[in-house]
Amino acid sequence: MSAAPHFNKIALIGFGLIGGSIARAAREQGLAGEIVTTARSARTRARVAELGIVDRVVETNVEAVKDADLVILCIPVGACGPVAQEIAAHLKPGAIVSDVGSVKGAIVRDMAPHLPEGVHFVPAHPVAGTEHSGPDSGFAELFINRWCILTPPAGVDPGAIERLRAFWTALGARVEIMTPDHHDLVLAITSHLPHLIAYTIVGTADELAQVTSSEVIKFSAGGFRDFTRIAASDPTMWRDVFLANKDAVLEMLGTFNEDLSKLTRAIRRNDGEALFEHFTRTRAIRRGIVEIGQDSAAPDFGRPHAHLGKKA
Amino acid sequence: MSAAPHFNKIALIGFGLIGGSIARAAREQGLAGEIVTTARSARTRARVAELGIVDRVVETNVEAVKDADLVILCIPVGACGPVAQEIAAHLKPGAIVSDVGSVKGAIVRDMAPHLPEGVHFVPAHPVAGTEHSGPDSGFAELFINRWCILTPPAGVDPGAIERLRAFWTALGARVEIMTPDHHDLVLAITSHLPHLIAYTIVGTADELAQVTSSEVIKFSAGGFRDFTRIAASDPTMWRDVFLANKDAVLEMLGTFNEDLSKLTRAIRRNDGEALFEHFTRTRAIRRGIVEIGQDSAAPDFGRPHAHLGKKA
Repeated sequence: MSAAPHFNKIALIGFGLIGGSIARAAREQGLAGEIVTTARSARTRARVAELGIVDRVVETNVEAVKDADLVILCIPVGACGPVAQEIAAHLKPGAIVSDVGSVKGAIVRDMAPHLPEGVHFVPAHPVAGTEHSGPDSGFAELFINRWCILTPPAGVDPGAIERLRAFWTALGARVEIMTPDHHDLVLAITSHLPHLIAYTIVGTADELAQVTSSEVIKFSAGGFRDFTRIAASDPTMWRDVFLANKDAVLEMLGTFNEDLSKLTRAIRRNDGEALFEHFTRTRAIRRGIVEIGQDSAAPDFGRPHAHLGKKA
Repeated sequence: MSAAPHFNKIALIGFGLIGGSIARAAREQGLAGEIVTTARSARTRARVAELGIVDRVVETNVEAVKDADLVILCIPVGACGPVAQEIAAHLKPGAIVSDVGSVKGAIVRDMAPHLPEGVHFVPAHPVAGTEHSGPDSGFAELFINRWCILTPPAGVDPGAIERLRAFWTALGARVEIMTPDHHDLVLAITSHLPHLIAYTIVGTADELAQVTSSEVIKFSAGGFRDFTRIAASDPTMWRDVFLANKDAVLEMLGTFNEDLSKLTRAIRRNDGEALFEHFTRTRAIRRGIVEIGQDSAAPDFGRPHAHLGKKA
């Protein structure tokens, strides 16, 4: 869409899975003169320095954002408001300020009031991730073919939006623009509710009286293990997501509960036809996801299989 | 545990994902003098013949089981009773009769009354699979390091149980013996409830008024796509599972609903501490599953990632 942009200095506040992946990809693609990062703990900062991916690791957010053309907050949603307040007075005029939070309404509400005139605020959410977290978990390919959703408030400079779009495009992502409210509804069903349900069932399995945890773990290949992956995601990040997108999550949960009651009733009444009809319909969605390249067509997500020596 | 067994003739009733995988693995391991199979539709039989994996594809179940030392029903749970009745009079004395059904109580109830004296009935359930089905979907490695649960009724010849254990071990599986009732409880939580929940949420997402299906598909990488895989499983098989394991599924569903209400309440009350505590606990289960080799340690199940050309 646009040529790859170049920023003299990019500041990444936070160096977890997303911050670390942005750093790796931006460096590989040569998008910055300098990439500076910081993290809350001294231990993480030391590890990041050791990894040698960024140009500088500094101690404070204020120092990190100094003279930066692009500042991206790569921290849990609940921490974004306070950090915006902290860095506000130190931002370079004309800088683009963005984030990577999985909730956008709360980000706009919490960050916008602190940001000074002359700074371009373009919230973003790359819909990509793994169950791993921490400075070692990132990789440059994370965003390839994944969507990055921008939710710029009304009145933001179109040039700044285009530069951020070009940045994400250069990282391999496809960019879409929507309102924060619509983003939060879409993500409530495509990400937040799935995580809530996964966290729930893994907790349920862990506490059963009739089946031991070790049985649950042993026989997990029948479906359960799929849920444990997203239920292993970062607890702080997800606590913040549910608190920040409460209304949309509760709304989707209401619909989910109705549908679960409907299927439960079909089981209770031995209504095989209703079950069959439902189970047939859901196959189409999977096909759609595989067709547009949002998941692998390989069976079982392409999980590796061992081999047995041939006897015959 | 035991040396790999050899059967003069193995009959596989049904050639879907499981039947086809048994055939491929048993052939590779040289476990049978002859493997004969059949399938309900002429089209599947023609395709199986074309694949050339088995020695013979026959038209009827009666013909398939004639002189077979090992007969395995690889068909939906609901079809096992009628097929047991159909083949009963044609089984070779001393033959082992087994199945691969995901429910065991109903299998014992439906099959045992039809089987003649002198035939060894050892129900089995290999806890392995993918979301694909049909004659082309099987592969020889499917059972490696997966558990196969045997639920022999009281009084079954221990020699027959050992032979079937050795057969599954030769296919790469680890074998465990339990009662049908306990099996059905374990699988209700590790497999049946996860499928029910996945089928539910995929259906919910498909019918929302506020978010289009095409948005759900596009932004599915935030977690939702994981659920679509198991919600793409064979509808006939799963209809039968829920009808046949109704009591255990409803029991687990009751506990799940209580736990979901608890987390919902925490969200509604902004109880971040309760959420954080729960999300931290569920990580341990994932670690256990990865540690005993029941899932991949690679991020995102090891899904493949594309590469961008390097610019710098």
